[in-house]
Amino acid sequence: MSHNSFGHLFRVTTWGESHGAALGCVVDGCPPGIRFTVADIQAELDRRRPGQSRFVTQRREPDQVQVLSGFIEDGDELVTTGTPISMMIENTDQRSKDYGEIARQYRPGHADYTYDLKYGVRDFRGGGRSSARETAARVAAGALARRVVPGLVVRGALVAMGEKEIDRANWNWDFVGDAENPFFTPDPTSVAVFSDYLDGIRKNGSSVGALIEIVAEGVPAGLGAPVYAKLDQDIAANLMSINAVKGVEIGDGFQTARMTGEQNADEMRMGNDGQPVFEANHAGGILGGISTGQPVVARFAVKPTSSILTPRKSIDADGKEVEVVTKGRHDPCVGIRAVPIGEAMVACAIADHYLRHRGQTGRL
Amino acid sequence: MSHNSFGHLFRVTTWGESHGAALGCVVDGCPPGIRFTVADIQAELDRRRPGQSRFVTQRREPDQVQVLSGFIEDGDELVTTGTPISMMIENTDQRSKDYGEIARQYRPGHADYTYDLKYGVRDFRGGGRSSARETAARVAAGALARRVVPGLVVRGALVAMGEKEIDRANWNWDFVGDAENPFFTPDPTSVAVFSDYLDGIRKNGSSVGALIEIVAEGVPAGLGAPVYAKLDQDIAANLMSINAVKGVEIGDGFQTARMTGEQNADEMRMGNDGQPVFEANHAGGILGGISTGQPVVARFAVKPTSSILTPRKSIDADGKEVEVVTKGRHDPCVGIRAVPIGEAMVACAIADHYLRHRGQTGRL
Amino acid sequence: MSHNSFGHLFRVTTWGESHGAALGCVVDGCPPGIRFTVADIQAELDRRRPGQSRFVTQRREPDQVQVLSGFIEDGDELVTTGTPISMMIENTDQRSKDYGEIARQYRPGHADYTYDLKYGVRDFRGGGRSSARETAARVAAGALARRVVPGLVVRGALVAMGEKEIDRANWNWDFVGDAENPFFTPDPTSVAVFSDYLDGIRKNGSSVGALIEIVAEGVPAGLGAPVYAKLDQDIAANLMSINAVKGVEIGDGFQTARMTGEQNADEMRMGNDGQPVFEANHAGGILGGISTGQPVVARFAVKPTSSILTPRKSIDADGKEVEVVTKGRHDPCVGIRAVPIGEAMVACAIADHYLRHRGQTGRL
Amino acid sequence: MSHNSFGHLFRVTTWGESHGAALGCVVDGCPPGIRFTVADIQAELDRRRPGQSRFVTQRREPDQVQVLSGFIEDGDELVTTGTPISMMIENTDQRSKDYGEIARQYRPGHADYTYDLKYGVRDFRGGGRSSARETAARVAAGALARRVVPGLVVRGALVAMGEKEIDRANWNWDFVGDAENPFFTPDPTSVAVFSDYLDGIRKNGSSVGALIEIVAEGVPAGLGAPVYAKLDQDIAANLMSINAVKGVEIGDGFQTARMTGEQNADEMRMGNDGQPVFEANHAGGILGGISTGQPVVARFAVKPTSSILTPRKSIDADGKEVEVVTKGRHDPCVGIRAVPIGEAMVACAIADHYLRHRGQTGRL
Repeated sequence: MSHNSFGHLFRVTTWGESHGAALGCVVDGCPPGIRFTVADIQAELDRRRPGQSRFVTQRREPDQVQVLSGFIEDGDELVTTGTPISMMIENTDQRSKDYGEIARQYRPGHADYTYDLKYGVRDFRGGGRSSARETAARVAAGALARRVVPGLVVRGALVAMGEKEIDRANWNWDFVGDAENPFFTPDPTSVAVFSDYLDGIRKNGSSVGALIEIVAEGVPAGLGAPVYAKLDQDIAANLMSINAVKGVEIGDGFQTARMTGEQNADEMRMGNDGQPVFEANHAGGILGGISTGQPVVARFAVKPTSSILTPRKSIDADGKEVEVVTKGRHDPCVGIRAVPIGEAMVACAIADHYLRHRGQTGRL
Repeated sequence: MSHNSFGHLFRVTTWGESHGAALGCVVDGCPPGIRFTVADIQAELDRRRPGQSRFVTQRREPDQVQVLSGFIEDGDELVTTGTPISMMIENTDQRSKDYGEIARQYRPGHADYTYDLKYGVRDFRGGGRSSARETAARVAAGALARRVVPGLVVRGALVAMGEKEIDRANWNWDFVGDAENPFFTPDPTSVAVFSDYLDGIRKNGSSVGALIEIVAEGVPAGLGAPVYAKLDQDIAANLMSINAVKGVEIGDGFQTARMTGEQNADEMRMGNDGQPVFEANHAGGILGGISTGQPVVARFAVKPTSSILTPRKSIDADGKEVEVVTKGRHDPCVGIRAVPIGEAMVACAIADHYLRHRGQTGRL
Repeated sequence: MSHNSFGHLFRVTTWGESHGAALGCVVDGCPPGIRFTVADIQAELDRRRPGQSRFVTQRREPDQVQVLSGFIEDGDELVTTGTPISMMIENTDQRSKDYGEIARQYRPGHADYTYDLKYGVRDFRGGGRSSARETAARVAAGALARRVVPGLVVRGALVAMGEKEIDRANWNWDFVGDAENPFFTPDPTSVAVFSDYLDGIRKNGSSVGALIEIVAEGVPAGLGAPVYAKLDQDIAANLMSINAVKGVEIGDGFQTARMTGEQNADEMRMGNDGQPVFEANHAGGILGGISTGQPVVARFAVKPTSSILTPRKSIDADGKEVEVVTKGRHDPCVGIRAVPIGEAMVACAIADHYLRHRGQTGRL
Repeated sequence: MSHNSFGHLFRVTTWGESHGAALGCVVDGCPPGIRFTVADIQAELDRRRPGQSRFVTQRREPDQVQVLSGFIEDGDELVTTGTPISMMIENTDQRSKDYGEIARQYRPGHADYTYDLKYGVRDFRGGGRSSARETAARVAAGALARRVVPGLVVRGALVAMGEKEIDRANWNWDFVGDAENPFFTPDPTSVAVFSDYLDGIRKNGSSVGALIEIVAEGVPAGLGAPVYAKLDQDIAANLMSINAVKGVEIGDGFQTARMTGEQNADEMRMGNDGQPVFEANHAGGILGGISTGQPVVARFAVKPTSSILTPRKSIDADGKEVEVVTKGRHDPCVGIRAVPIGEAMVACAIADHYLRHRGQTGRL
């Protein structure tokens, strides 16, 4: 058991606060012989990094990853040895004065209050373990997880922001990583819409939620288990562990509550290659907790950050009633940066189940 | 690690198939000194039991629980000793012939196919571990979990079925358990609506999904952890592990993706008793993964069962294309019986975190 | 985490007290497709069963195992399906009156006292979970574990009892299971010696300890891990979890503290078949926590039972000073029956590491 | 599950190789509010550190610990926040050339061979995870564990080295840490004996084993569990996970195999303070897996290091027969430095069970 680890055979432990010396993770159970470069990991971290557009916090951390253990070098490449891979990111921009004003005030909707209730000891600077910065460690781990399953491709996209959503007819995976796309949206026509909308939010000192979709292709059939190790259950748990996530769904998700059995059935035929073919994917690639071989599809809802300029009624650590205004540097839509984090968490769940399936059945 | 267990300090392992001799669970880590009666457990099981109205499968199992270990007797009461509590329910109605026809056919939307892919060995009779019958064991465990946390009350209700939903203005917890209420709906006016609707579904040999809401009151503040042992994460995982569940949300859930920071903030004041008071509960009783002391609110979506009379295109275990029609006895809306199961899974998550919090902090 | 489970991928949970209705185990994670018969399991249980000679307790339990889940039938054989295998043994001989006299007295050297301290609630009848009867469940699980690793043979023998020990020059595995051998000794000449010795112990109402050796052949090289999942560590933990075990050693064990590096080195040559050959096995088949491919050798010490006729000074649950005399039916040397239990625990550790190794590396 | 973690509620994950950039640990689950200084941790590390006498390897690492997360500062003291505590030690003395000659040769009795078999990828420099250097991380974690249980004192001593052993009549805990005592022996008269003996061993390029005893005082009664979470089982597993340990015993350990029930019973009386008093401690403070309140006593055997100057027959990674001579810098008796490591591992086991007991029972 662990409060700061996830996964079973591909097991990730993260540590560190946003305003300490560093943060990092230890990846235990990674198979030996996996090849990667530090640049591979760094590239994933750079996608999550703040300070890249006016829509994300201007805290400028280089987020430079160091890989400290678990590999041997082979030219530019690192090769995993099967032992724990420790990765560390030093914190360089720790202006804790930003937080001074609200150090003892509880931001409504924030973990400040519950943290104090739980531990009785809190690092007032930047949210401690609840800081979004912790997610950098997940992204680093996810970069390795992606390499564990041959042929696995995990991609994510922002599909709605507040009252605005994309047009799925325009879905273009290539556009998600486009330099002109500050939103991870797959719909080029949505950029202008989201920009205008979020500028309004930002200028008001407000914030807004978002909806993220993750699609994993190349997931072998058979991963998961029927009851308490369902693949969708572990994906849901992993996504729900991301800060500010309040809902998770698989495939058609909440829509299935409205559907009939006829609508929801993913009918099957035999393909020309003698392999089964599904005519739909309402199930999101998972039936009875076990992968079908179709793309695995998950969506999660990110709430708006509680760090806003509009005064909110609250109390402080002494029980005094206060009006809280959060100045500091904050994202108007934390959901944007959740895209690479969601990808990482789904990749980790799949890598773990890949190893578990191999362990129990001897296949793969 | 375990494929058939959940929880850490309050740990539940379930076993058994729908068409074997019996099914059951082992509850490990239950504190000593908890008092209960077999009738307490049985009462919870009776709520989940099929055969109680025309809207649920007519498979008539008495579902009589036996408590085999982990207690001493004190008059009518059993007192837990701190050792594992084994509970067993014998299967008495195993008409496996019902399934003969579709034994080798894969029902679209069902776990048949993935089960075969994973294990290569399958019990054709009734879905094996994927059978809804496995959930009886969860309900038995949940009946104990409810007693672990003093003052805890966990209740659930069906809030939507297919295209129909309740009127929340009529919410009445007392009505949920009413003998005239076959739906676990909290809205008396909805019974006629759901009855008509589901009669239509049933007569068509179709099925429909549902939306369930669970509310836990009396949850002490401070349960959970900021990162990978979030209370909401473990509730989500537990609910997602129930058959046919495709989505889970906490508090305002997916709605938060559409909200602003102002809307989503649960403002706080000091109450007359010197205790903090929240003016809203958008967060569903959990902030940063840790309980606030407010009611914990979770919702989950149950997809329509894939066992329908309408022929669906599929293949069989030999790769032959077939049209599948599932006769047998099946619920037109499996979501109805998911209500007590959802309660049990939430109760187990809370009991586990109660013990974990006590272990780490020495409080409670 | 669990107080009543062991193993990770091959995971065993046991439950039940000696004087309740039944006891049993759930084996989770067993690979699908393993073939066995109920008679296979029963045969292992019969080896551990009391009442077979005058040297073991005359409590006569048939110890009839029922296999309740996790298989399909194929003629006489059961084939595992990959889902949890629940096995149960009903208690039929529960003469709790035997214990009446010492119900509230703490037997010196027994778990009575610590049990009360820990839980505050105790089943006075027969030691609760600390009863030797719990080990029947381990033996049942071990019978499956043996089948998980192709070619694995795990055998055990009693090598010393009190002041008497075997002559290793006479070691004969075939004799261990001989009908004329009530001691699991591998040395035919030792039977008369142990018989005389133990008759004396028994007539005095005394008890005596024993030393057991377990040898596992056919263990593939590469199982285990360098640090906290050492194969020898898990074997040691499994053996130490058996009642009354006070010491465990691997290979030359405690003797290595007296040896030099020259003496302890297992030198290697290349065999005619192009495979490495070790010229000795001081290491007991494990180097750096990982199996070498040589036989794995472990020994454990079983203390004398505390249930003796000689009065011992103690206190009772009310803090009153008493003289304890344990009548009841007790083994003069509980170590004898520890042989099949030790085998089972070693088999379970190896099966677990076999699946773990396969999971991480994809080999086997 | 994890190959590089141990403990459940007080959970330690270690990482790093001897010849990489750094090594370290993450301690998860430490209660909030524990006070310590970096100097406290460093003091423990300094006890384990090489280079302090002619009897330990002359590799001179400062082993300077950095505490990277999980605390707030309060003057000189650090106060734990309940979040993971990451500690790191940079490697500064990585003369990997020392190992060049034997890079591809398998040292008999060493993990080189099994490592290659398991992973197929090995860091030839210094033994990778099997290096004794990994144990620095355990000592750092143990320094925290000691503070988790109020009043706990865990001390260790070397009681035998090769053919020489201490005279227990001279036992003096104060002498163990004496500056003139390079052996952690509690018997002042043994220093000259051990010195002469080990000088001989060292000059011959040989090595020798040792026997270590750990005594934990102030362990509350009630820690542990009757079956698979026995306190002695977890202590045994923790000690067995230390490099080169081949045997572990609790209390009278292997001697109990030779004892009668009368000899082994720790008789009890009521003390003047109304508390039970034991008249002996053959059990080593643990009965039925649960602590009695007496001192917990464990011993472990450390084999001689396989790195010796005497040529030994072996093979290399290409299957060629070779004579191995290990030059480099090596301890003639690695058991000496195992004393603080053993203390740390016992302290971690006790801290974990302290939290587990509190979780399940609400006491402490």
